[in-house]
Amino acid sequence: MADSISFARGAPSLDIIDIEGLKASATESFSEDPGGVTGYGTAGGYAPLRKWIAERHGVGVEQVIVTNGSMQADAFLFDELVQAGDSVAVERPTYDRTLLGLLERGADVKMIELEPDGIDTAALRAELEAGLRPRFAHIIPNFQNPAGYTLSQAKREELLALAAEYDFLIFEDDPYIEIRFTGEPLPTMLSLDGDGGHVVYASSFSKTVCPGIRVGYLVGPAPLIKEITTAATNTYISPDMVAQGIVYQFCVSGRIEQSVKTVSAALADRVAALTAALDEHLPDAKYNAPEGGYFMWVELPEGTDVAALEQAAAERDVVFVKGEDFVIEGATNQLRLAYSGVTPAQISEGIERLADAYRSL
Amino acid sequence: MADSISFARGAPSLDIIDIEGLKASATESFSEDPGGVTGYGTAGGYAPLRKWIAERHGVGVEQVIVTNGSMQADAFLFDELVQAGDSVAVERPTYDRTLLGLLERGADVKMIELEPDGIDTAALRAELEAGLRPRFAHIIPNFQNPAGYTLSQAKREELLALAAEYDFLIFEDDPYIEIRFTGEPLPTMLSLDGDGGHVVYASSFSKTVCPGIRVGYLVGPAPLIKEITTAATNTYISPDMVAQGIVYQFCVSGRIEQSVKTVSAALADRVAALTAALDEHLPDAKYNAPEGGYFMWVELPEGTDVAALEQAAAERDVVFVKGEDFVIEGATNQLRLAYSGVTPAQISEGIERLADAYRSL
Repeated sequence: MADSISFARGAPSLDIIDIEGLKASATESFSEDPGGVTGYGTAGGYAPLRKWIAERHGVGVEQVIVTNGSMQADAFLFDELVQAGDSVAVERPTYDRTLLGLLERGADVKMIELEPDGIDTAALRAELEAGLRPRFAHIIPNFQNPAGYTLSQAKREELLALAAEYDFLIFEDDPYIEIRFTGEPLPTMLSLDGDGGHVVYASSFSKTVCPGIRVGYLVGPAPLIKEITTAATNTYISPDMVAQGIVYQFCVSGRIEQSVKTVSAALADRVAALTAALDEHLPDAKYNAPEGGYFMWVELPEGTDVAALEQAAAERDVVFVKGEDFVIEGATNQLRLAYSGVTPAQISEGIERLADAYRSL
Repeated sequence: MADSISFARGAPSLDIIDIEGLKASATESFSEDPGGVTGYGTAGGYAPLRKWIAERHGVGVEQVIVTNGSMQADAFLFDELVQAGDSVAVERPTYDRTLLGLLERGADVKMIELEPDGIDTAALRAELEAGLRPRFAHIIPNFQNPAGYTLSQAKREELLALAAEYDFLIFEDDPYIEIRFTGEPLPTMLSLDGDGGHVVYASSFSKTVCPGIRVGYLVGPAPLIKEITTAATNTYISPDMVAQGIVYQFCVSGRIEQSVKTVSAALADRVAALTAALDEHLPDAKYNAPEGGYFMWVELPEGTDVAALEQAAAERDVVFVKGEDFVIEGATNQLRLAYSGVTPAQISEGIERLADAYRSL
């Protein structure tokens, strides 16, 4: 039986995690601030890390809360903002866990088509003109999960204008921003908005330090962050101070910049291997090569049964996630390939197997 | 201005935390299982720690979920079990955050008087006979927060019999169990219940490793743990693997036993200093000296205004938590003294100040 090859999970392979840097960061953290990292702390997060994040985004600390991973931040935000029946606009396709979190809370989710340069702002405008009044629009601006697409500067500005005109929040969900391996970085909507108060920004250290450390954060209007901090206090008193102390040392030591370089270089190679393998073995696949991040969206010819392909691929020990998991309905000929956890050699082999599965349908 | 002395917070002082042991545990954890602690893991918790806990309690791993602190475990449990209007029985007084968590979810909270040997089981029986049908009874069996009292073996057995007869769960909330410095350990209700399925047990490493590491857990019937694990997945994917890896190494290296000895010895000294100082300076104070844990409950003569005492004490730079914070109403002449974070010298000085404040009323 061949080794299983997984394009399913958005997680880095171990070879691009800086284990020695983590060890050093842990030792430094316990040495330099033993009371701060072993004590309860407060729900806003480990104070030095919170300050580091605030400075990086040019905001006050009262606009930042650091949480046990950014999913936990999302959960607090949704609990705060979403009542059953509230409208929320999201990209189509979008991150399946976000979709689940919104649907579980009874949100009336309006999916707006995602284009290679980001959400279809004209379609969103038409919905708003027709009466849609979303509580917020959830946007993954860089190297979107699942599609790998990036929101253009023009569309960032247009979204902010729509948010101001129709008075909704933009939830800028940006965990992949640092992992750009080609093209030019674009400004965050948070920074473009200035003091406008239209953006809540989320990011995480899962892609730059490691996922297991579960450190994410929100930046937003101070009153909203204060409400979420109260909810966090009542949920868990404080997030993990030990983990946040390690992340802080990883950041201030400069290890994070080296880690970003390592990860970005590896992922660039993996995308190159993926596109080469698709072009060679599965030329029916249509895709837009991402400029960063973990994921690539693949469209197969109209009528291809990707659910059947999943089955045929599993029989060949290769797995991926069906496109339909990222939408409310449709996308049955589409799929997500995560290339973050597989080597170029595994990618070539995996796409050969996928192509064989495709031909078997 | 004198240094402030705090009897308010249930947290250990830094001198009884094993910082070097934490550093070693972190290094070992990253060395021995780099993939396990840096990857996402699953919502059940870091697998080796989950297994260690299961073995310690003599249950299967499917009966254990490890969370970001035990408050987070409580929150999941309450979300799972408590609908607005549901009855829940708790001790009077009880931990203020538990009370808040239940009241926030709309529970109909029935407080049952706590006696020096634990909850008044006769009063609970009378309530049950009169029709009370609690979803669960929340019990802190060892060195209760806030009272410091311990539930007797006879009452443990009686509670289990009531739970079986009236079909409710016992939520055995037991973070202090390891911190016994005098008297004999008593069996957990979880162990007495065997396969009865009437107990959900919670504990934490906050008192044996350190609070900032935020690692707690639940042990309970497998179907309930499975439901909570699904909720945990949807909330944060997985808890902090790095923190749980450190705790695991702290446990298997035997450092945890040494830490328990250090903490217990220090807290025994602190209780001795506290009772001696009260007897000398504030003989009006009535108390039952705890056999372990962090807290002691103090009753002042009927009619003493503890809210006014709090103010007078604060003017003398000494703080504590009023009794009324741990009940729904009453306890206005009672207070909680936490001795975990203060040295014997600070305790003597603090009680002298408290006595001076008392005389000023």
